Amino acid sequence: MAVGENSLAFNVVPGVRLASAIAGIKSNQTHDLVLFEFVLGSVTAGVFTQSLFAAAPVVLGKQHLEQASPRYFLINSGNANAGVGDAGLMDAGHCCSALSQSGGVRPEEVIPFSTGVIGERLPVEKITDQLGLLVAELAEDKWLDAAQGIMTTDTREKIASRTFEHNGETVVITGIAKGSGMIQPNMATLLSYVATNVSAVGQTLQASLKRAVDLSFNRITVDSDTSTNDSCMLTATGQTSASLADESLLEKFQIELDALMLELAQGIVRDAEGATKFIEVHVKGGQSMADCSAIAYAIANSPLMKTALFASDANWGRIVMAIGKADVQIDVRRLDVFLGDVQLMKNGEKNPAYTEQAGAAVMGEEEIVITVDINAGDFATSVWTSDLSTEYVRINAEYRT
Amino acid sequence: MAVGENSLAFNVVPGVRLASAIAGIKSNQTHDLVLFEFVLGSVTAGVFTQSLFAAAPVVLGKQHLEQASPRYFLINSGNANAGVGDAGLMDAGHCCSALSQSGGVRPEEVIPFSTGVIGERLPVEKITDQLGLLVAELAEDKWLDAAQGIMTTDTREKIASRTFEHNGETVVITGIAKGSGMIQPNMATLLSYVATNVSAVGQTLQASLKRAVDLSFNRITVDSDTSTNDSCMLTATGQTSASLADESLLEKFQIELDALMLELAQGIVRDAEGATKFIEVHVKGGQSMADCSAIAYAIANSPLMKTALFASDANWGRIVMAIGKADVQIDVRRLDVFLGDVQLMKNGEKNPAYTEQAGAAVMGEEEIVITVDINAGDFATSVWTSDLSTEYVRINAEYRT
Repeated sequence: MAVGENSLAFNVVPGVRLASAIAGIKSNQTHDLVLFEFVLGSVTAGVFTQSLFAAAPVVLGKQHLEQASPRYFLINSGNANAGVGDAGLMDAGHCCSALSQSGGVRPEEVIPFSTGVIGERLPVEKITDQLGLLVAELAEDKWLDAAQGIMTTDTREKIASRTFEHNGETVVITGIAKGSGMIQPNMATLLSYVATNVSAVGQTLQASLKRAVDLSFNRITVDSDTSTNDSCMLTATGQTSASLADESLLEKFQIELDALMLELAQGIVRDAEGATKFIEVHVKGGQSMADCSAIAYAIANSPLMKTALFASDANWGRIVMAIGKADVQIDVRRLDVFLGDVQLMKNGEKNPAYTEQAGAAVMGEEEIVITVDINAGDFATSVWTSDLSTEYVRINAEYRT
Repeated sequence: MAVGENSLAFNVVPGVRLASAIAGIKSNQTHDLVLFEFVLGSVTAGVFTQSLFAAAPVVLGKQHLEQASPRYFLINSGNANAGVGDAGLMDAGHCCSALSQSGGVRPEEVIPFSTGVIGERLPVEKITDQLGLLVAELAEDKWLDAAQGIMTTDTREKIASRTFEHNGETVVITGIAKGSGMIQPNMATLLSYVATNVSAVGQTLQASLKRAVDLSFNRITVDSDTSTNDSCMLTATGQTSASLADESLLEKFQIELDALMLELAQGIVRDAEGATKFIEVHVKGGQSMADCSAIAYAIANSPLMKTALFASDANWGRIVMAIGKADVQIDVRRLDVFLGDVQLMKNGEKNPAYTEQAGAAVMGEEEIVITVDINAGDFATSVWTSDLSTEYVRINAEYRT
């Protein structure tokens, strides 16, 4: 039930090798264990969930990232290794140690990631049993296998890739992401891994990642629920002479990275659990970004708005309701609201020229833009979301069965 | 699909007369117009929605309440008279004027209320056509008709009644409420009308109402959506010699009023759209009420938690997720979580004695209490909610069709 096209094209990133395996952590015998290997000298930046109940791999991964430059990411799907207390930290540490031996690195050069059911112990042996095989099978071209291996309720792989020339060098950025429910990232998304062949120092890379995440993963919501395991990583392998220390490259790189991350983030919304619609809520004319964001999320997260979208019902009163509950001080008499190109509200009232037929035509589309103009300032933002379908309820009612 | 028993027993309130009619505002030919008449000398308190897009009757009603003591409430269902700009105020004003003529009072002695579809003009003539009949049919015993007449997607009437003796006088409190979706009241609920025969000054009555609302209607959520029309009114007709100026009566009265309002508020949750479960989320041991409330609402409003409840799936990882996203600073290593009497988490980890079977047994019940103990202070609160079912989506996808 995913919405829109899905390109699986990608470019390999020199300095990055990948492998994946069926470890039996997921019950459906699909790939559930993924290994990333980065060439010596690579630099990695990361942002992680702000959940108070951050999963064990998030806690340990952040520690490792401070201690060393990662050489490996070890990612399992099917089990979140969250909500299990100190045992989770022990289990994640055990996996890192085992991989450090197979890979000939220090344990802190391994970052662990998990996604899946919360509250169950990680099946450590199922993972460590596969490590020798994974290391032996590492190859540059296995990005699609990796994209598949990190999936849980996702129905399709999310991969995005960009290349551009800079001073005769070819710069590559390639990334994957997973996630389709429990999506309202808070400083990161569920899981996303992006790599590039440029060289960069940690501080620049972190700033670049944070900016891109704020404009992409931090602008999507499926169900307002924030994961315990959100992590988004950006690794620069330094396999070209191009360096982000070069301001003109940094500028180009940021534009491409922003676009790539937005493509991945939107890919998550397009594949949201039960989604039949892909919605952009664009709020402009605000006196602050916070005002625009609060109104956009109030609309994007309203169950009543989302069911109206599912039903293709131009029940615009629910937009009014959602704006009203956003707890933002605006002058409603200046509000303009559009559904696609059709103006619903003019100066806070129903637009006299609006017809139910025109509204219904837009609501019948698979991709819909809702625009709210506060007409009070110069700030603007967008949030992307999906509709709320009976299928969303069915998927999440049956998740563990 | 309502959960639990529903008593329709009530006592009349001397000084209050009611009538209802089929005005044809709702398409299904059921009662959609209700009139309350209060005896001269009655005192009324009210709390209203905090929505920025407060409906026209809310705006006008608040003005009237400041100008005079209400003699009539005129309530229609089927149309919210919200989001229609100044025309809404004009339409509501027109209805008040018409009734003031039929009833022989001033327009500001009439408070208008509306509930239903947002964004459409109020069919004023359909309402004014019925006013003569309504005034002629006023009677003390028509509380049930009124409870029916204010319903929209509700499947059953909500009525609650209390009597007690004080110094030889019989004190009566009777109230009705409506609402089953767009329910996360903010200082009020959708619509609720409570009356009593005691006498009271406005300030005392307002304080008494506010307290009762904070402990009842402001503690429920169905879908986190706040209505444009929320209003809760308490009228004292002064038809006994008992007065709230008497401290000992006020104390008794408050206890009964709190209980009655909680019964009405819980009645709304029990009849929530598509509800198959009635859930209490009790959070205790907090360092502040705000902490307890934030965690309780994070759990009660989580779509993933609500679908798990619908599925009777003891997916307690979703409780962990919801607590994690509540943005409250607590020590998760002290957290205890209970499902009914079954302890799920102990000191922030899965309770070793917990069994899936024990959890599933509780989740199979129609009424479930989730208890979170922060173990850090003395504050506690409860929030009541329902599950999220495929039926909720169906009802709201088809609401206007």
